[in-house]
Amino acid sequence: MSVNHFARAAKPLGRSVAAAAAATSPCARARNAASRQNFTTSAFRQNVPGKGHAPRTASTWSFQSVFAIAAAAGILGWGAAELRHRDFPGAMLLDSKVPMPTYASMREMEKALDEIREAVGGEDILSTDPEDLHSHGYSEWSTTNPEGLPVAVAYPRSTEQVSAIARICHKYRVPVIPYSGGSSLEGNFSAPFGGISVDFAYMDQIVQFNKEDMDIVVQPSIGWQDLNEQLAKMGSGLFFPIDPGPSAKIGGMIGTNCSGTNAVKYGTMKDWVINLTVVLADGTVIKTRRRPRKSSAGYNLNGLFVGSEGTLGLVTEATLKLTVIPEDFSVAVVTFPTIRDAASAAAGVMQAGIPVAAMEIMDEVQMKVVNMGGATAPRVWKEMPTLFFKFSGTKAGVKENISLVQRITRANKGSNFEFAKDAREQKLLWSARKESLWSMLALRKDGEEVWSTDVAVPFSRLADIIEVSKKEMDDLGLFASILGHIGDGNFHESIIYNRRDKDERDKVETCVKNMVKRALEMEGTCTGEHSIGWGKKESLLWEVGPDTLGVMVRPPSPRASVMKAIKLALDPNWIMNPGKIFDRSA
Amino acid sequence: MSVNHFARAAKPLGRSVAAAAAATSPCARARNAASRQNFTTSAFRQNVPGKGHAPRTASTWSFQSVFAIAAAAGILGWGAAELRHRDFPGAMLLDSKVPMPTYASMREMEKALDEIREAVGGEDILSTDPEDLHSHGYSEWSTTNPEGLPVAVAYPRSTEQVSAIARICHKYRVPVIPYSGGSSLEGNFSAPFGGISVDFAYMDQIVQFNKEDMDIVVQPSIGWQDLNEQLAKMGSGLFFPIDPGPSAKIGGMIGTNCSGTNAVKYGTMKDWVINLTVVLADGTVIKTRRRPRKSSAGYNLNGLFVGSEGTLGLVTEATLKLTVIPEDFSVAVVTFPTIRDAASAAAGVMQAGIPVAAMEIMDEVQMKVVNMGGATAPRVWKEMPTLFFKFSGTKAGVKENISLVQRITRANKGSNFEFAKDAREQKLLWSARKESLWSMLALRKDGEEVWSTDVAVPFSRLADIIEVSKKEMDDLGLFASILGHIGDGNFHESIIYNRRDKDERDKVETCVKNMVKRALEMEGTCTGEHSIGWGKKESLLWEVGPDTLGVMVRPPSPRASVMKAIKLALDPNWIMNPGKIFDRSA
Repeated sequence: MSVNHFARAAKPLGRSVAAAAAATSPCARARNAASRQNFTTSAFRQNVPGKGHAPRTASTWSFQSVFAIAAAAGILGWGAAELRHRDFPGAMLLDSKVPMPTYASMREMEKALDEIREAVGGEDILSTDPEDLHSHGYSEWSTTNPEGLPVAVAYPRSTEQVSAIARICHKYRVPVIPYSGGSSLEGNFSAPFGGISVDFAYMDQIVQFNKEDMDIVVQPSIGWQDLNEQLAKMGSGLFFPIDPGPSAKIGGMIGTNCSGTNAVKYGTMKDWVINLTVVLADGTVIKTRRRPRKSSAGYNLNGLFVGSEGTLGLVTEATLKLTVIPEDFSVAVVTFPTIRDAASAAAGVMQAGIPVAAMEIMDEVQMKVVNMGGATAPRVWKEMPTLFFKFSGTKAGVKENISLVQRITRANKGSNFEFAKDAREQKLLWSARKESLWSMLALRKDGEEVWSTDVAVPFSRLADIIEVSKKEMDDLGLFASILGHIGDGNFHESIIYNRRDKDERDKVETCVKNMVKRALEMEGTCTGEHSIGWGKKESLLWEVGPDTLGVMVRPPSPRASVMKAIKLALDPNWIMNPGKIFDRSA
Repeated sequence: MSVNHFARAAKPLGRSVAAAAAATSPCARARNAASRQNFTTSAFRQNVPGKGHAPRTASTWSFQSVFAIAAAAGILGWGAAELRHRDFPGAMLLDSKVPMPTYASMREMEKALDEIREAVGGEDILSTDPEDLHSHGYSEWSTTNPEGLPVAVAYPRSTEQVSAIARICHKYRVPVIPYSGGSSLEGNFSAPFGGISVDFAYMDQIVQFNKEDMDIVVQPSIGWQDLNEQLAKMGSGLFFPIDPGPSAKIGGMIGTNCSGTNAVKYGTMKDWVINLTVVLADGTVIKTRRRPRKSSAGYNLNGLFVGSEGTLGLVTEATLKLTVIPEDFSVAVVTFPTIRDAASAAAGVMQAGIPVAAMEIMDEVQMKVVNMGGATAPRVWKEMPTLFFKFSGTKAGVKENISLVQRITRANKGSNFEFAKDAREQKLLWSARKESLWSMLALRKDGEEVWSTDVAVPFSRLADIIEVSKKEMDDLGLFASILGHIGDGNFHESIIYNRRDKDERDKVETCVKNMVKRALEMEGTCTGEHSIGWGKKESLLWEVGPDTLGVMVRPPSPRASVMKAIKLALDPNWIMNPGKIFDRSA
């Protein structure tokens, strides 16, 4: 995708940056910055110490009195600055006089781009082609796309090049936005403040495979499906079990702490990271730890960087755990008269501790979408609330788990327990599930969009929230489907709406916000696996509150702001993926 | 333990604090603090701006020139302070002029204690009984106990009381050290800078049990064994699978990110925490998240606080995942001619993906210790390198796993595959394993100590490191044993030595450090589950290096210090469990 842009990338920088500038108007921001600084300076002049004490007219002064005034002035000056900072870093958070982040002016921006070209050598490190900028600033997958585009897209080939890019961007206060698969749903790679999108397209390799230790070192732009294909080709007998959207890549999967249908058995992304190589805001390269599967040595930086959406640093390499491909698989679907029956069957399976490989719920609309997609044609599935099961393990184990699950589904009005009849149908059926969002997108008519979102609740509440949320959507008379990772209490809602009908869009937005509020009332979370990005910042504040998130509070308390304190400690210039998770000004 | 001290705690504060002072000499520290401050002031006087420009003799001055000098002085003063801080928090890390943390003077300490009594009401919140101070500052379990004792032990009953304690300690810069089970091995609850040990003895309750959601809300001082007994009494069919030393309690288990024999199947502590209530350094109370099993909303604060050893905040409540008690259990031991054969059998089991519930390795010495302990008498076990297996699941599943494992052990020269013949023997055998450190402690003669430590490596290297480490110890002619969670590549070394023989102690210390260095050379970690505490700070620096840990580096780079940047952002006064994981001055 990127390669064919490089020739064009050679065109004079000025024009395209100017073009981007029109969108992001960094100039305006630069002006604000300047005026803000002027304010500070003039404000400072206001209280130049000593002035008040100075006599109105010239007169005779002793050295002592001059010294005294000068000393007093010095102390007051020092004191004023000390007061501005207090003696702890966190104070910055709460000092309303601290300017909001201001980013590079156009001139500085051009200097930064030149310096990057010089530092990493070669023109083809940067693209400023308008199409390239657009594809890195606007996401068809995301409903919420802010104004603004990156002013350049960087295509680094190594950690060292990423480090150089970060170092220079830190120096000039240029925003840095990581990009890998580009299939995130909450505007996660958008560029509301311009800056440089760092596309890892050329960093997509397996670096080292440690078969005996069952781990593998990879670069951020390898897709999880490619990774598993390569592991299969090597005949390793191993696979990487985290399975988000088919086009997701490891970098973004780490950024969002994604998961997927396998999470009920294998957990989420954070559970599969052994170590990370991270380029920090100023270009410093760190390794979170070495290669043990288990460690309690110091702070768990894997746990911190996974899910931080590139706001704390850029991951350039990851060591991932792998697991053994089970001997046997089976896929089955079972239908229920209501979502509630399906949910209580699923709860029964969890509470019996049956180790299913996956357990997905799809409502009648989503089943209709599968049939319309025709992925499993000629086979057609009943358009009723349905549970998808994946079983894996030894042959005997799979057989046993199926009979245990069948007992529970029958007791919950489940019927039509149908197995995929062969490996091909298993694959088709599961891919129909995996590609359900794509199937929805395929149904859009001209001018229509799909709003796809997720929440998670303690799983005993899943039926409640699905029922109410479905009803609210149906009352809007919109085409909307629900599917969920029911074992995790996590579900997705996809709504087709007309983007030209503002009223309709507002209704859908209300619908989504109500679902989030409902999830929080049920002690859930505003996102189980999609993360916050640009689109759910308000929801995150509702969820964790000001003290945990870090909004300004009065009376000032430096600690009343954990996430923001961490962000400021690692990215004081606020250049790493700005506008995501929370805002400096929030 | 604490209760009987309360009467005595009523004795005049002065004396007992003075007593403690003798040990921790906070007076001395206070003096240092004062002198440091004096230095700062005098240093400041040195460069009082204007002085250099002042004429040697009195003369006539215009208002303008006075104003100019005063303004210059003010600006220089401001500038000096600005320079001291720069415009980002991280700068503090690297500014060698920033004073090391200085803690409360005796007078301030007494004021803090009075204020705490007043704030939470009642005398019995604080104990200053010397025995109590000693038991909270010195650990028999830890080889490395620094000088110093807390000056008081607090016994809060609620999160609000803990918050009041932290708020007051923050105000007076009094160190705060959390205490629960007290069985940590690296001096984790020691008080090298005095301060207040916060013992959660009265916060040991189940707060809320969500059976349907398979989670439970608990206070920090409930033991994992008590928790499981209570879950059994309730007939819940659920249990909490993390199994460190028998006396460990949830608070400390969170602090150290502990694990145990079940980790190979169930993971470590961080994998079982749904949310935490944390009291931050200044008393602010936060909740890391609500109650979903899965979330990708914002930074993963669970992952950060778990394993931070109370250096970032005090955990006062935790919601933990629970899991279903398997239908069937079996415990077996199998012996091998060499450790290497045992290790390769274990690797075979992992690489075949057989879901064993636990797989432990014990060398011939450790088996001898089990026999000497007599826990399973009259039964006596062969004193050879041995693998302990725990199998769990459905009856059919257990049967199948056993036959799969037997095939692998036979192929690796395993013999004498013996099962515990009944539930009683299963329990005895497993507790013999669990209590192996106690058995070692029981073998100490007068003047002897046990040095117990752990490391972890990628599991393909386990045999290598065990062989070399055993040989090094045997060459010292010391009684030393090895046991390990071989599926995790994590093992423990316990060495009996004579504490009165400095030369011998030094040899053991060298031996332990060599083992750590070996683990790091093999891409391992200096601790798999014991954490850093006071004893392994140097090892952590070897492991993650200056950039990740946060030692002073030149040229200054604010980000070249991730762990310390986070610590400073959340605990600028450095009062939370100071002296653990890393030092302010490192």
